[in-house]
Amino acid sequence: MGRNILIAHGGGPTAVINSSLQGVVEAARAHRQVGKIYAARFGAEGILKGDLIDLTDVPAGTIARLAHTPASAIGSCRRKLGEADYPTVLETLKKFEIDCFFYNGGNDSMDTCHKVNELAKREGLDLRVIGIPKTMDNDLDVTDHCPGFGSAARYAAQSAAELALDASGLPIHVVVLELMGRAAGWVTAASALAARLTDCQVLTYLPEVLVDEDKMLSDIEAAFAKGKGLLVTVSEGIRGLDGKPLADTGIVDGFGHTVPGGTAQYVTEQIMKQLGLKSRAEKPGLLGRASIPYISPLDREEAYAVGRFALESALKGESGCMVAITAERKPVYSSSLFLTPLQDVANVEKKFPLEWIVDGNRIADAFFDYAMPLMGGDFPEYALLR
Amino acid sequence: MGRNILIAHGGGPTAVINSSLQGVVEAARAHRQVGKIYAARFGAEGILKGDLIDLTDVPAGTIARLAHTPASAIGSCRRKLGEADYPTVLETLKKFEIDCFFYNGGNDSMDTCHKVNELAKREGLDLRVIGIPKTMDNDLDVTDHCPGFGSAARYAAQSAAELALDASGLPIHVVVLELMGRAAGWVTAASALAARLTDCQVLTYLPEVLVDEDKMLSDIEAAFAKGKGLLVTVSEGIRGLDGKPLADTGIVDGFGHTVPGGTAQYVTEQIMKQLGLKSRAEKPGLLGRASIPYISPLDREEAYAVGRFALESALKGESGCMVAITAERKPVYSSSLFLTPLQDVANVEKKFPLEWIVDGNRIADAFFDYAMPLMGGDFPEYALLR
Repeated sequence: MGRNILIAHGGGPTAVINSSLQGVVEAARAHRQVGKIYAARFGAEGILKGDLIDLTDVPAGTIARLAHTPASAIGSCRRKLGEADYPTVLETLKKFEIDCFFYNGGNDSMDTCHKVNELAKREGLDLRVIGIPKTMDNDLDVTDHCPGFGSAARYAAQSAAELALDASGLPIHVVVLELMGRAAGWVTAASALAARLTDCQVLTYLPEVLVDEDKMLSDIEAAFAKGKGLLVTVSEGIRGLDGKPLADTGIVDGFGHTVPGGTAQYVTEQIMKQLGLKSRAEKPGLLGRASIPYISPLDREEAYAVGRFALESALKGESGCMVAITAERKPVYSSSLFLTPLQDVANVEKKFPLEWIVDGNRIADAFFDYAMPLMGGDFPEYALLR
Repeated sequence: MGRNILIAHGGGPTAVINSSLQGVVEAARAHRQVGKIYAARFGAEGILKGDLIDLTDVPAGTIARLAHTPASAIGSCRRKLGEADYPTVLETLKKFEIDCFFYNGGNDSMDTCHKVNELAKREGLDLRVIGIPKTMDNDLDVTDHCPGFGSAARYAAQSAAELALDASGLPIHVVVLELMGRAAGWVTAASALAARLTDCQVLTYLPEVLVDEDKMLSDIEAAFAKGKGLLVTVSEGIRGLDGKPLADTGIVDGFGHTVPGGTAQYVTEQIMKQLGLKSRAEKPGLLGRASIPYISPLDREEAYAVGRFALESALKGESGCMVAITAERKPVYSSSLFLTPLQDVANVEKKFPLEWIVDGNRIADAFFDYAMPLMGGDFPEYALLR
């Protein structure tokens, strides 16, 4: 009888979340000390219901296909566990004789992970708990970056460049692109790469800087007047000078966060009404975390490696930690993995450095020095003949 | 002194419009009888201003990069030529001693093309005029399909599948995806492939069928209740039982068409208000015609071939025609090119066959028999473990 393991997903998926799952499963299969390999069906909900998926004998070919399967292949949920839920969680862990528990998520999930670990210790359980980082938002602390960010950033950057070329090749309207990222502008910042890859004017607005709407509109008017087309990229979470979101959907999610949305549409309406210019709003939304063709190959590799490292660490007896990434960027990019205590990352939000935002609507080179390797580099050189 | 040629783009671009340009230029360079190779800067506007781009000596490597450059590399416009403009057009053609004129566009552009050809004949000019088809909407008549459609359809199909997996992997909301296509549902129909590639419920609404909003909402409620997640895909141009668009932007474009948009947002609001379900609207918009990673390889090849065929046809003395595609699908897909008179395609709109729409919200196999090869086939098989 080997050690039984359980992996669960928490919160929204990324384009590479299943690569981490693949990493855990393939590493587990290489160890004779691993017994059953379980996954929680739809995250915390599966754990509470004792509804686990047995992956022990799933064909290797199916596991390999996880590399190009978007969203959570085992299901996820947004349920935030309350104090009353933890005894039920422990019950499931005992029932399935789980020795190693892996929770793959963002800072909310790392908090859950931390609490499970503390409770298990108090109850004298021999349970090893390892957090596997995942968030397209890149807002987890300690780690250089999060698996999932590189692909979301690549999606934002390349999509923005493609839209910018559409806008400059047929400069009849201001195109406004809304990107995900509630409180942190990491993904939206990547869209500013369009200014470097194309001939189009590009203005970028992140949630870290309160937006002066009058200045925004006069900057848009001036940029469009250059006649080269204009792409405006906005985070879904940008706020006005009064600190309130320019727009939101009015929905509150399971973690108590307001769901933003409609920001690009709002900006578009102001451009049409107040400037008399044509404008259209585009909002790929969840596609920014689900698109496989725009995946960053490096991001996928690292997501896989982080899963393997989590499994190896647990088998070595580690617990109460999250896998984190440290990276060198010069002379060439290289990264390695280490463990960091869960309490150092639980509920902490890594902010986008304010000094990387120039004049409120451009992004400094330093951001691209940081993000370019994570996006997988190799952006196309376009043929612009006009 | 060889024959000078001129190519112009009309209307909105596709993901492969530049491949047709590449085809014309590379074929022209292989012929000693071709003199100067010109492109109109920003379409009809460049022709009216006598503002042409000389491509004769542009490096071969730059021309090769057209294959992965989205939007119009030479610029396009939405200006519809009026009777008063045609003498100016002829003036430019004479000034640059153009012998062969290629207009790459949709049915509006084929009308322009036809008029230029008629006028040139009346004036006794030795001008050869060939239309090169291009429209993501696939609504040109006579031709089996249009270059640009296969890539837009692939974008719709694969994006919808990726969103569907997100929706079924975290089934907390109804996801509504808006796709381009004002009057014809060809592109939106492709999104129904998500029902075949994933475990998610999928409902699809095209502009060809008036939408009974009450039935739409009750169908949405029933489909979401199955607990497998729900993706609703809608064409931007869908209309209610009164024949009016569910939503539009209030903008009128240069060809006198109302610019649709906001349909998914409208449906989302009805789902939230009337059904009390969470819902979110996604609208990749112009990305559906600009995305390079989702290109259909077959579509790109055909766009290139159509450009080459146009050039060869003009040099053989043909004029007043559009290049069209005929295709066989069994036992395997094969296609060939032919010429069709411009007046047969000018201003005619090919409709989506009503018999391919099942119960108002599903798409028949016959559509996929038609469209699958055009999308380039080879859709990923996903790993679904939940």
